[in-house]
Amino acid sequence: MKRSLQQVKALTFDVFGTVVDWRGSIIREMRVLADKKDWSIDPAEFADAWRDGYAPAMDQVRRGELPWLTIDVLHRMILDDLLKQFGITGLRDVEIADLNRVWHRLKPWPDSVRGLKRLKTKYIIATLSNGNLSLLMHMAKFSGLPWDVILSAELAKHYKPDPESYLTAAQLLDLRPEQVMMVAAHKSDLDHAARTGMQTAFVTRPKEFNPDKKTDLKYERRFDINASDFVDLAEQLDA
Amino acid sequence: MKRSLQQVKALTFDVFGTVVDWRGSIIREMRVLADKKDWSIDPAEFADAWRDGYAPAMDQVRRGELPWLTIDVLHRMILDDLLKQFGITGLRDVEIADLNRVWHRLKPWPDSVRGLKRLKTKYIIATLSNGNLSLLMHMAKFSGLPWDVILSAELAKHYKPDPESYLTAAQLLDLRPEQVMMVAAHKSDLDHAARTGMQTAFVTRPKEFNPDKKTDLKYERRFDINASDFVDLAEQLDA
Repeated sequence: MKRSLQQVKALTFDVFGTVVDWRGSIIREMRVLADKKDWSIDPAEFADAWRDGYAPAMDQVRRGELPWLTIDVLHRMILDDLLKQFGITGLRDVEIADLNRVWHRLKPWPDSVRGLKRLKTKYIIATLSNGNLSLLMHMAKFSGLPWDVILSAELAKHYKPDPESYLTAAQLLDLRPEQVMMVAAHKSDLDHAARTGMQTAFVTRPKEFNPDKKTDLKYERRFDINASDFVDLAEQLDA
Repeated sequence: MKRSLQQVKALTFDVFGTVVDWRGSIIREMRVLADKKDWSIDPAEFADAWRDGYAPAMDQVRRGELPWLTIDVLHRMILDDLLKQFGITGLRDVEIADLNRVWHRLKPWPDSVRGLKRLKTKYIIATLSNGNLSLLMHMAKFSGLPWDVILSAELAKHYKPDPESYLTAAQLLDLRPEQVMMVAAHKSDLDHAARTGMQTAFVTRPKEFNPDKKTDLKYERRFDINASDFVDLAEQLDA
């Protein structure tokens, strides 16, 4: 193991796409709901549109055009628009609220829980997601994700990739940034974490997006670790 | 089960004294250290003096006489004074830092883990302690406390019993105060929680303090639940 890696005390994980399969989970739930309600919609198209609304909504908060709003609230704003756009009517408010909570019920990738359990024996394992604390907590309970602690951009009131989101996490862990390793399937998340002094682990998730979309899976020398999944990550970190 | 109790979704636990036996844990570690170093001190007296410094130090933060400082830092300030007071010299800084982390290694009461595991099957279980997040996280890892989420006064930057400490926890859980039940062995903590709208469970911990100190163990009608330990609490909450 590289010498710099020996400083690492905690791993902070991006969640949507890195730990859980948001797309597959939403497609499955939407398919069931569409069948039950007799809607003729493409569940994959719906899932992709929902996710596509996510970054622009957060950016509005990051630029100060919206006040601080949680991801649950932003997901609901996007969902209300999508329901109109897809011509879906007749859902009761309690049904819409439940549909919005699909983001609390996302399923882990097949290696996630096994890899996390191994990593947990040697490191502190924490979320570091833009998802709000209660969303991440419900997801952990639903999917058996064995976090030591749930951290979120909500605790900094700054969404990733604002530096405050990473630095607040390190501070709450009572660690220096270089003692914390950000784990993500998204290079931009890692590059922003690195700028605050954190170490970085890139994990490829080839099935995160629509197969038509070209996903960048190339390993990069600038990351401290490149791994094919969480079990590979655990191997490389001697856990 | 009383109707009002059926609203409860999450239990937030006071930690020092309610979940873990701070006094017994510190006495044990101090005894080992005193033997090793050949100090003639009374470990129980040392433990009690350390804990006695805690509320006054927090009150200085609460009154704004000190800036926000974590419990780790306050514990260290008190410890530095105590070492002088007890005439203890010759400890290296790394040894003092390790001694200060005894608060991360406090042992649960015999019923704590068993009761929490039962409660976790039906409720969200969270810490709500003045201890900082990293302290509570290390303690959970050390003692196998199965929290769903670690909440702390640190997240509100307001120590209990300031109302912000309770209300921030409810907000992060995305629950109304009446959906949250504060669990504590200390009546004042519960009374302040109740003023913010939370429900309350009093759990008696007859061995928390020095046996010379008269501990108030009387059940009170004003609390929603009175319980002899966490297993009794689980029974009463149908978990």
